Amino acid sequence: MQTETIRTVWWSDEDGEAVALLDQSRLPHETVTIRCRAEQEVADAIVTLKVRGAPAIGVTAAFGVALGLRHALPKVHSVVEARAALERICAELRRTRPTAVNLFWAIERMRQRVLATLETPDGLQTAGDVALAEAQAIADEDAAACRAMGRFGAALIADGDVLLTHCNAGALATAGWGTALAPLREAHQQGKRIRVFVDETRPVLQGARLTAWELQREGIPLTLITDNMAAHFMRRGGIRAIFVGADRIAANGDVANKIGTYGLAVLAQAHQIPFYVVAPRSTIDLSLPSGEAIPIEQRNPDEVTHIQGIPIAPEGITAANPAFDVTPHTSISAIITEAGIARAPYDESLPLLFAEPIAGKA
Amino acid sequence: MQTETIRTVWWSDEDGEAVALLDQSRLPHETVTIRCRAEQEVADAIVTLKVRGAPAIGVTAAFGVALGLRHALPKVHSVVEARAALERICAELRRTRPTAVNLFWAIERMRQRVLATLETPDGLQTAGDVALAEAQAIADEDAAACRAMGRFGAALIADGDVLLTHCNAGALATAGWGTALAPLREAHQQGKRIRVFVDETRPVLQGARLTAWELQREGIPLTLITDNMAAHFMRRGGIRAIFVGADRIAANGDVANKIGTYGLAVLAQAHQIPFYVVAPRSTIDLSLPSGEAIPIEQRNPDEVTHIQGIPIAPEGITAANPAFDVTPHTSISAIITEAGIARAPYDESLPLLFAEPIAGKA
Repeated sequence: MQTETIRTVWWSDEDGEAVALLDQSRLPHETVTIRCRAEQEVADAIVTLKVRGAPAIGVTAAFGVALGLRHALPKVHSVVEARAALERICAELRRTRPTAVNLFWAIERMRQRVLATLETPDGLQTAGDVALAEAQAIADEDAAACRAMGRFGAALIADGDVLLTHCNAGALATAGWGTALAPLREAHQQGKRIRVFVDETRPVLQGARLTAWELQREGIPLTLITDNMAAHFMRRGGIRAIFVGADRIAANGDVANKIGTYGLAVLAQAHQIPFYVVAPRSTIDLSLPSGEAIPIEQRNPDEVTHIQGIPIAPEGITAANPAFDVTPHTSISAIITEAGIARAPYDESLPLLFAEPIAGKA
Repeated sequence: MQTETIRTVWWSDEDGEAVALLDQSRLPHETVTIRCRAEQEVADAIVTLKVRGAPAIGVTAAFGVALGLRHALPKVHSVVEARAALERICAELRRTRPTAVNLFWAIERMRQRVLATLETPDGLQTAGDVALAEAQAIADEDAAACRAMGRFGAALIADGDVLLTHCNAGALATAGWGTALAPLREAHQQGKRIRVFVDETRPVLQGARLTAWELQREGIPLTLITDNMAAHFMRRGGIRAIFVGADRIAANGDVANKIGTYGLAVLAQAHQIPFYVVAPRSTIDLSLPSGEAIPIEQRNPDEVTHIQGIPIAPEGITAANPAFDVTPHTSISAIITEAGIARAPYDESLPLLFAEPIAGKA
C-alpha cells in the first residue's frame, strides 16, 4: 500500500551545499527539484510558495539558517561578526511570511542553538556543523511528529468514513507524512476504507494541485470539489469528519489556517460534523491569548484575479486576498498534536501538551 | 450615473431572423454577439452557458420556440403537423438544463399560446407572429419585473451598506436589470453609497467574469473575493446583507440556486446577516412542496479540474460538479419578487404573490 515517500525539503550535498525543495508551484504538472544555494534563495522560495505549509516552511527556514551560516562563517573574524551574520540571516528569513508561527519558532530555535555554540571555545569552527545538525533534527522531529499525529488522529476515523480536507496539510506541507493528512494516511494503511472530499482551495489551489496529487499517489479515493460545494456535501454527501492543518494556534485554541477554514468550521458546527485541527506543538503560540492578535498575511490580489497567469476578471477591479482566516476555538472539536489530543477548554488542555518538552526547546 | 444598458438576449432581424445573445462564456475579455438561426443553436447556447441565469434562459428559450416555429410553419400542411413541430421544438429546448424552472415556465407559456392560436381559423398563418410577440412580451415583462424587484429590494439597503452577492444574478441573467443586482443598482441610483463583495463563484466564475464586469460598468464599488473568503468577511468585513438570485423556489420557500448559495445562507445565519433571495414569480414552482424534489444538474467535472481549458489538478482524478444546491427556507430572511416581498411562513406568503396573476398565465 505504501508508496514512495514524498520529499518536500532536504539538505543536498550534490554539486555544492544547498537546500533542496520540490517546487510546489509547478505541481501537479511537473515535479521539479530546485536547489537554493543562498539564504536569499531560500527566502524567495518561501515567499513565492515554492514551499508552503507551516511545518515545511519552518524546516526550510531552519536549513536556510544553516546554509547562510555555513557561507558566512568562513568569512568572519570574530564571534561578534558571526553573531551579526546570524542575525542578518534570521531577519532575512523571518521577513518572508507573517502568519505561520512555525517559521519564527524554527528560526528562533536555530538562533539560540547557534548563539550557545558561539559561546563555546571552538564555536566559530563548530557552529556551521551544529547548525546543520540542528536543522536536520528539526526535520527529523517533524517527520516523527507527523507519524504520531497520524496515530492519534486515525483513532477518530472509522472504516467507511467520508472525510473532508481543505488546502494541503500533507507531506508537501511538512518534512513527513503531513498534519491533517497523516491521520488519513494512517487510517488507510490500517485498512480502513475512507473517501476524501478535497476542497480545491482558491486562490492558489493547494487542494486541487497538491492534496489531490498526494492522495492519488497514495491510492486513497478522493473527490475534488470547489470550495463552495463543501456545505452541499456536508448536508448531502455523508461527511463524517473534517481534518485541517494550522498555521498558528493561540493559547485559547483559536486557529489561524488557510482562508476558508473558518467558514468550514462554522458549517461543520451547523451540520454537527466534528472539526479537527491537526498540528505539531511548534504551531502553538502560547504567547498569544487569542486569535485576534494573529497577523493575517495579505497576498497579491493578482492571485485572485488570475489563475496560472490567465486573467479571470475584468482589468482594473479591486480584489482582496487574505491568505488566512481565524477560527474561534468554540468551533473546533479537537486539536490533534504529536503529544496527544487537546479538547476544550483549550486554555487548560494546550499547556498540558508541553509537559513533555519539544526536543531542543528550553 | 446610468450606463448603457447591457443587452443579454434579443430578437434580431439583421441578415435573417435570429435569437441574438451576448456570448457570456467569453466575457469579460471579449464582448461578442452570436446569432442563433435555428432552435438547435439556441439549445446549444443554453447548454454551453453562452447564456445563463434563470430568467435569461427562460427568455432565450421563448425566443427559441418562436424561431423554431417560424422556420417550421411554412413547411407544414396542417394544424396537426404544426402541433407536432411545436412539440419537437419545445422538447429540444426543455432538454437543455434541468434546474431553473423559468425555462420550463417560459416554454410552457409559449406552447399554450401557440396551441391556442392554432385552434383559431387562420392559426397556421398567424401562429408565427403570435409566438414572436409572446416571446417579446416575456422579455419585456422580465425587464419590468427586474425594475420592480429593484425598488422593493432597495428599500432593504441603507446608505453605507456593505453587501455580498454570489454568482451573477444581474442584467446578464435576465432581460433587464437583473434579480439580485437590481436592488443594488436601484440603491446606487438613489444615491446610497454601497460597496459589494463579489464571490468569484467557481467553477464557472460567473462572479469574477460577469458580476464584476457589470458592477464595474455601473460604477458600483466592488471587491472580488474567492468563495471561501465570504465567511471571513462576514465576520470581519462588515457585511450587512447578502443578495442572491434563484433558479427554482419550492412552495415552502426552499431555494435552488448556484452551488455555494446554501453555504452562504448557513454562514449568514450564524453571523446574523440578512439573506435575501431575489427572483421573479416565474421562478416559483408551487407544484413542488419542498426543495428536496428539485432536480440538481450535474455538469461535466472538467469545469472543476480545468479553468479556461487549463488543467489545475492531476489527470485522472474524480471531481464532483453539482451546478446548484438547495437552501432551506429556514435560512432565508425574505424572498423579493416583482409583486412584493415574501417572508416566513413561505407556504402562506408565496401563494399570495400570485393574487395578481403573471401576464399570460392561465
